[in-house]
Amino acid sequence: MGTYEEFNQYVERIENLNEVMGVLHWDQEVMMPEGGINARAMQFSVLSTMRHELIVDNKLSGLIEEMSKYGGEEERSIHREIKRMHERAMLIPTELIKELSQLTTRSFPMWVEAKRKSDFKHFEGMLQLLIEKKCEMANCIDSNADPYNVLVQDYEPYLSLSSIEEILVNLKESLVPLIKKIREEGEDIKETLEGNFDLQNQKFLSEDVLNLLGYDWSRGRLDMSPHPFSMGNVFDSRITTRFEGENFVDGLLSTIHEFGHALYTLSLPSEHYGTPLCGDMGMIIHESQSRFWENHIGKSLAFWEEILPTVRSRFPKMEFGSPERVYKMVNRVKLDNPIRVNADELTYHLHIIIRYEIESALIRGELQVSEIPAVWNEKMEKYLGITPENDSVGCLQDIHWSHGSFGYFPTYSVGSILAAQISHHIEQEVGDIGELIRSGDYQYLKNWLGENIHKHGGKYTTPELIKKAVGEDIKIDYFVGYINRKYAEIYEI
Amino acid sequence: MGTYEEFNQYVERIENLNEVMGVLHWDQEVMMPEGGINARAMQFSVLSTMRHELIVDNKLSGLIEEMSKYGGEEERSIHREIKRMHERAMLIPTELIKELSQLTTRSFPMWVEAKRKSDFKHFEGMLQLLIEKKCEMANCIDSNADPYNVLVQDYEPYLSLSSIEEILVNLKESLVPLIKKIREEGEDIKETLEGNFDLQNQKFLSEDVLNLLGYDWSRGRLDMSPHPFSMGNVFDSRITTRFEGENFVDGLLSTIHEFGHALYTLSLPSEHYGTPLCGDMGMIIHESQSRFWENHIGKSLAFWEEILPTVRSRFPKMEFGSPERVYKMVNRVKLDNPIRVNADELTYHLHIIIRYEIESALIRGELQVSEIPAVWNEKMEKYLGITPENDSVGCLQDIHWSHGSFGYFPTYSVGSILAAQISHHIEQEVGDIGELIRSGDYQYLKNWLGENIHKHGGKYTTPELIKKAVGEDIKIDYFVGYINRKYAEIYEI
Repeated sequence: MGTYEEFNQYVERIENLNEVMGVLHWDQEVMMPEGGINARAMQFSVLSTMRHELIVDNKLSGLIEEMSKYGGEEERSIHREIKRMHERAMLIPTELIKELSQLTTRSFPMWVEAKRKSDFKHFEGMLQLLIEKKCEMANCIDSNADPYNVLVQDYEPYLSLSSIEEILVNLKESLVPLIKKIREEGEDIKETLEGNFDLQNQKFLSEDVLNLLGYDWSRGRLDMSPHPFSMGNVFDSRITTRFEGENFVDGLLSTIHEFGHALYTLSLPSEHYGTPLCGDMGMIIHESQSRFWENHIGKSLAFWEEILPTVRSRFPKMEFGSPERVYKMVNRVKLDNPIRVNADELTYHLHIIIRYEIESALIRGELQVSEIPAVWNEKMEKYLGITPENDSVGCLQDIHWSHGSFGYFPTYSVGSILAAQISHHIEQEVGDIGELIRSGDYQYLKNWLGENIHKHGGKYTTPELIKKAVGEDIKIDYFVGYINRKYAEIYEI
Repeated sequence: MGTYEEFNQYVERIENLNEVMGVLHWDQEVMMPEGGINARAMQFSVLSTMRHELIVDNKLSGLIEEMSKYGGEEERSIHREIKRMHERAMLIPTELIKELSQLTTRSFPMWVEAKRKSDFKHFEGMLQLLIEKKCEMANCIDSNADPYNVLVQDYEPYLSLSSIEEILVNLKESLVPLIKKIREEGEDIKETLEGNFDLQNQKFLSEDVLNLLGYDWSRGRLDMSPHPFSMGNVFDSRITTRFEGENFVDGLLSTIHEFGHALYTLSLPSEHYGTPLCGDMGMIIHESQSRFWENHIGKSLAFWEEILPTVRSRFPKMEFGSPERVYKMVNRVKLDNPIRVNADELTYHLHIIIRYEIESALIRGELQVSEIPAVWNEKMEKYLGITPENDSVGCLQDIHWSHGSFGYFPTYSVGSILAAQISHHIEQEVGDIGELIRSGDYQYLKNWLGENIHKHGGKYTTPELIKKAVGEDIKIDYFVGYINRKYAEIYEI
């Protein structure tokens, strides 16, 4: 085998092992009987060890070195991604990877139990260990760098932490006063869309909406799981969602959110399957796609004008009123909600910012684990005027830290900022997105996203891709303009 | 790492890669959207190549050599299985494995098309190629041996082909005259259980029966697929079945058949998961378990006495008559049925024997591929008095050859023979199985099978295991006695 073929074989194996682990993960969340976890854990261990051995193989070092001399633009992008993966992995001792893997396996049930009992103490020691090990990992990768910066790169490798932090700081400055103003001066929207919504009909409604948006069922499926997610590749990109009996809106918006992820995946360049070119460019781009569909389509007035007859036909006994009324309730700022995943477009980001401020301080050694509950509640009060009833709906609500995921949360907010920028850019080109929705023309939007973002796959780095798509760097201005306009209208302020 | 740990790592990896491929296979058959096949094919290719590389690794040769000096009974069984796998794989050139893998990927859709059009010519060239490649493989493994014998060992590694063939020959000698006698002298059972059976209620009925038999839902699940199968390991053993609207019996018996497979898997020694000790001992033992439950339980009078009230409650509009009547119709010899999977306990084996006679002659070079349709129909007429309407319901009906599986069919019949022997042995110990069924005491049967067969996993070879379980070698006599008694009564001959 020549260098080129040999390098490609590594790439193909690494990428396909990732895909296989994706299928196993989906199966575990959606289909696997509970007892299966014993076998599944060992299957994951074998696959991830074999994948790690491939990535840190000394032979691959040589191939990466040799391959750096060759290739066109696409080959160079594959090379860039594999080199990054390889160099990062080479710096982390295998022993540490094993320790981290074992820790996260053990920590998940402890977090579940702590959350159930609303007992932070039950999780505190484990969280302490996880943070220590993650800091150790960051230190191995780059002992001179800010450890939080190093960890964020697992989720967003190319956009600098300084630009991410700038966005978060500006977001807080814009949102805290806006929410305060809504609280003090805004119309008091007391009504909600709560009622009694049959789960089977909620599933049908989600299918209706996926049909409307043009989800390709020949390459996907919709199932239910406790935590909605999307999984897959360009040939097979599945969605999960969750439904609650009293509330059909959150489940439907989850479906639309995951549709955005799946649409990205399904529009990647299939001819490059098995290489990073047919992969996404990190979590910020991914979240920009899901948030675009969730917020700029699923929470728009035009969408509710179009979809309300279908909603009525699925729930003929419920009263909805006018589309304008429903739109208002869908977008109501939940001034008393302590839970991130139930939050609206405004408070959502403050939930994220609290997590970001706490996790970055923990990783930077500026905060002790034992201080988390107090600091959490303090920030909740300060930014949102809410004091969570207990830690279960407070600092224990999210799964991420129990997975050892520190640095993931910011991608949610930054993705939303980018979604607003993309939305603005599309409107500059074509005019009001609401008009496209009213004419049922989702194809235009899908083509635009496909041509400007999806089809590039892993070719360009995040900043390059953003510049290609919207002609400039990521900027918070469009988001700030958008929410100020939107909420001024809704709350008549 | 010491020799022991290193050897175990190979074992763990090989076994877990098998398990992972099992999950992917289940997903593909039951859940995967059609487009997913493009990615799945590459995933399988990567996993099976990596698995093959592990098995033929020169380092493993050395470890096998060293390990031959150590170990207790269990370690020696692991060693025996890995050594067998390794030695067999070492003899097959990697190039041939790739060729065969590509051939079988291409041949499946050609077989589907040929069957659809009932056009044997469409499949003939491909089948010719498959046979040539399989013969080449057999020749690589042992150029002095009977090539059919070599191929059978992929499905049954330890029971000799001569004893398998002896069983098949004796089966034919017993069954052809019995079927002739039934045709000529037997009561003409014209009634059938055909009707209109709602598929959802058929699924509920399958679940009812699985509950009755004590299927462990925490380690399994029931789904539908075109070809029923079971998949998994001791922690996660899933069943699929199929339902037809006009006939509820075949689907229910498929469920019970697959339950037998799953029960075996679920009762393997879980402490040895990730080694061949927690694996099955080949297809004959596996089929003996599925056939035991399907034939000796699911087709018994006692079972229909017990289950008929449940059947009636699931299909309240249908007329069933007495349990005796239903029992007769369930066991009716289908003298005009050309399809193996719909066959009864008698004609089933002649369907198998036809396939065995043809495939063994093909592999031994005693028959040309072009002669298959004519020889098939000739044998069908001779053994069963049936001439299939066309090749679609004749020599193209089964998937096996399109997978390159030559030597698999005999395990179905031999497994049934063993099931009758096991059933006889249990009755010698405890008396009439019908009485156990009537008392709802399936636990006794499950314990017996668990203690005497399942818990041994891959510890003993097939002949050793049979001897341990029933105290003698496999013998056809019990089966012959059983069917003669059963059918003499049903047909009053």
